[in-house]
Amino acid sequence: MTKIRIPVNKLKSFAKEVLLKAGTRKDVAEYVAEGLAQTSLRGVDSHGIRLFPHYLEGVKKGRINPKPKYKFKKTSATTGLFDADHTFGHAAGMEAAKKAVKLASEAGTGHIAIYNSSHFGAAAYYALEIAKHDMIGMSFTNTDALVKTYAGKRSFLGNNPICFAAPCKDEEPFCLDMATSIVTFNKIKQLCAEGKEAPPGVGTDKEGMETTKSFDISMLLPMGTYKGYGLSMVIEILCSLLTGAPYGPHIPKMFERPMNEKRYLGHFIIAINIGCFQKINVFKERLSCMMNELRSEPRLNAEIPIQIAGDPEKNAARKRTIEGIPVDQEEYERFKKIANEYKIVIDFDKKGDRH
Amino acid sequence: MTKIRIPVNKLKSFAKEVLLKAGTRKDVAEYVAEGLAQTSLRGVDSHGIRLFPHYLEGVKKGRINPKPKYKFKKTSATTGLFDADHTFGHAAGMEAAKKAVKLASEAGTGHIAIYNSSHFGAAAYYALEIAKHDMIGMSFTNTDALVKTYAGKRSFLGNNPICFAAPCKDEEPFCLDMATSIVTFNKIKQLCAEGKEAPPGVGTDKEGMETTKSFDISMLLPMGTYKGYGLSMVIEILCSLLTGAPYGPHIPKMFERPMNEKRYLGHFIIAINIGCFQKINVFKERLSCMMNELRSEPRLNAEIPIQIAGDPEKNAARKRTIEGIPVDQEEYERFKKIANEYKIVIDFDKKGDRH
Repeated sequence: MTKIRIPVNKLKSFAKEVLLKAGTRKDVAEYVAEGLAQTSLRGVDSHGIRLFPHYLEGVKKGRINPKPKYKFKKTSATTGLFDADHTFGHAAGMEAAKKAVKLASEAGTGHIAIYNSSHFGAAAYYALEIAKHDMIGMSFTNTDALVKTYAGKRSFLGNNPICFAAPCKDEEPFCLDMATSIVTFNKIKQLCAEGKEAPPGVGTDKEGMETTKSFDISMLLPMGTYKGYGLSMVIEILCSLLTGAPYGPHIPKMFERPMNEKRYLGHFIIAINIGCFQKINVFKERLSCMMNELRSEPRLNAEIPIQIAGDPEKNAARKRTIEGIPVDQEEYERFKKIANEYKIVIDFDKKGDRH
Repeated sequence: MTKIRIPVNKLKSFAKEVLLKAGTRKDVAEYVAEGLAQTSLRGVDSHGIRLFPHYLEGVKKGRINPKPKYKFKKTSATTGLFDADHTFGHAAGMEAAKKAVKLASEAGTGHIAIYNSSHFGAAAYYALEIAKHDMIGMSFTNTDALVKTYAGKRSFLGNNPICFAAPCKDEEPFCLDMATSIVTFNKIKQLCAEGKEAPPGVGTDKEGMETTKSFDISMLLPMGTYKGYGLSMVIEILCSLLTGAPYGPHIPKMFERPMNEKRYLGHFIIAINIGCFQKINVFKERLSCMMNELRSEPRLNAEIPIQIAGDPEKNAARKRTIEGIPVDQEEYERFKKIANEYKIVIDFDKKGDRH
């Protein structure tokens, strides 16, 4: 399937202008457009610009509040509660990340529990923002029930992701951003579209039996079996029990529910001020050193390089900065239709203003 | 193989008295004895009393400092550096956990980076201590290179564990304590002893090729393939890069190195004051509710109950509180020999003072 390549800044402008015309406040629109553009640039297509039409529908129908009235309550030197008033997860997460950085600048660390939010997008967006400030950033979100319970036959918890970013020398931060399922549902949908089988051990049918028939997969399996299941529970505790947010099966579903239904998602953001432990230059230098030592370890297969968490995303970003973001014909038409609907004059094909 | 069952308090007294006679300071001996007893009681035999002769050897030969001079530096309202002066990980971790709780009582959260430490024992010991104070406890340690690098043919990182504990209503805290490898080396050693094959996909030979021949396994595989490998790196960053501690292959090995060689291990401890986010009773009630909802989900196999992280340990503790800690004949003789050597009068077989 041939892809059309669109410069990242074009996609970002498109998203921002449409959101503004749809009544989104400027600060919110900027966070969303930036988050989607960064995510697509880093090759994480499942959480990038592909979701834009879905989010827009949420704004139109009332699921997502484009003009939130945030409520922030600082509850100690290093903790706070953030009511996101049902806005975009991108805006909620970014506001909270900035507050966490502020607390950590003053008191060593910052921890913000966010509630009344919506889809988080890529967790890396927030952790990477924190890492820019010479801090360790961590971000977590709960998600609706997607993963079969270990030893159970239904789903209860989501594939709640964990993200950790830390700054290093001479390259973008170390960044691990992982779901606690083996693969995402988006991957399964992609396999269905291509008429391919799923690998063994990644999903089950609606009775909880493992299957490789991608069309029959209705639940995902946790990575590392009971360990991924345990980690998902840890993330659920941070994201829903520290506030009054719903958990697991009580979270309104992303796709199956009407688009006027709010999602009540919860997120948790941590910033750790590295300078309170180690000289920042020493930390960055040692982290780069460790990463490069690992990358130059002997390979099992000479053709397959040893990578560090975040390396595939760094490679994608380098490539896509030059070549643009690949979108398929169907997405491309959808974007054009949206542009027409909102009377946005945007020439997706024109090159030149990529930076 | 028949096991001899020893009341947990007998094992604890034995460990403490021997350590004291070997020149260990009282506070240190108490932490070690308590940690080993709790760990064995919870069924985690790999990290329980079984390791006592190894630790004792470390005290005798100089690896472990039985009379440490700790240095603690509070570096912000919520962060601190703890130089453990090469004492037992149990004592270092427990001192740090108490400091983390104190910081979190005052400023919402506490984060302590520990360096110049030795083997951590079970990470749950520290996180559970923090959970007693109505806080979320997290504990991490680095370990020597044990796990084959993803796409590499050697080991670089250890199976660095992550532990998370949170208090709940009417039962012991929720507690996830997991290594980032699929199985531990101890499990492989046990399979060797029993002449059994290892399950596929858990270990490799010294060339990095997967094998089920337990005798040939010299490296472990990470849980969830590259995800476990990524998590292990995250834990390494927290445990070695936030201080000047060595990482991965630069950490002196636990078993292969002379017992006078210090290990320079690093740990990281976090306490989060739940009351800064949610009313503690509401948190505990909702967590118990979530756990019980999960446990009563429909089972895939009617005979196999749905468990929550920590349930196997809770079941073991209930059983072993009544029946005692099972030790094999060889261990039993070793303990008796140690008791004789230190002229400890202890009747392992006598029942009655179990509580």
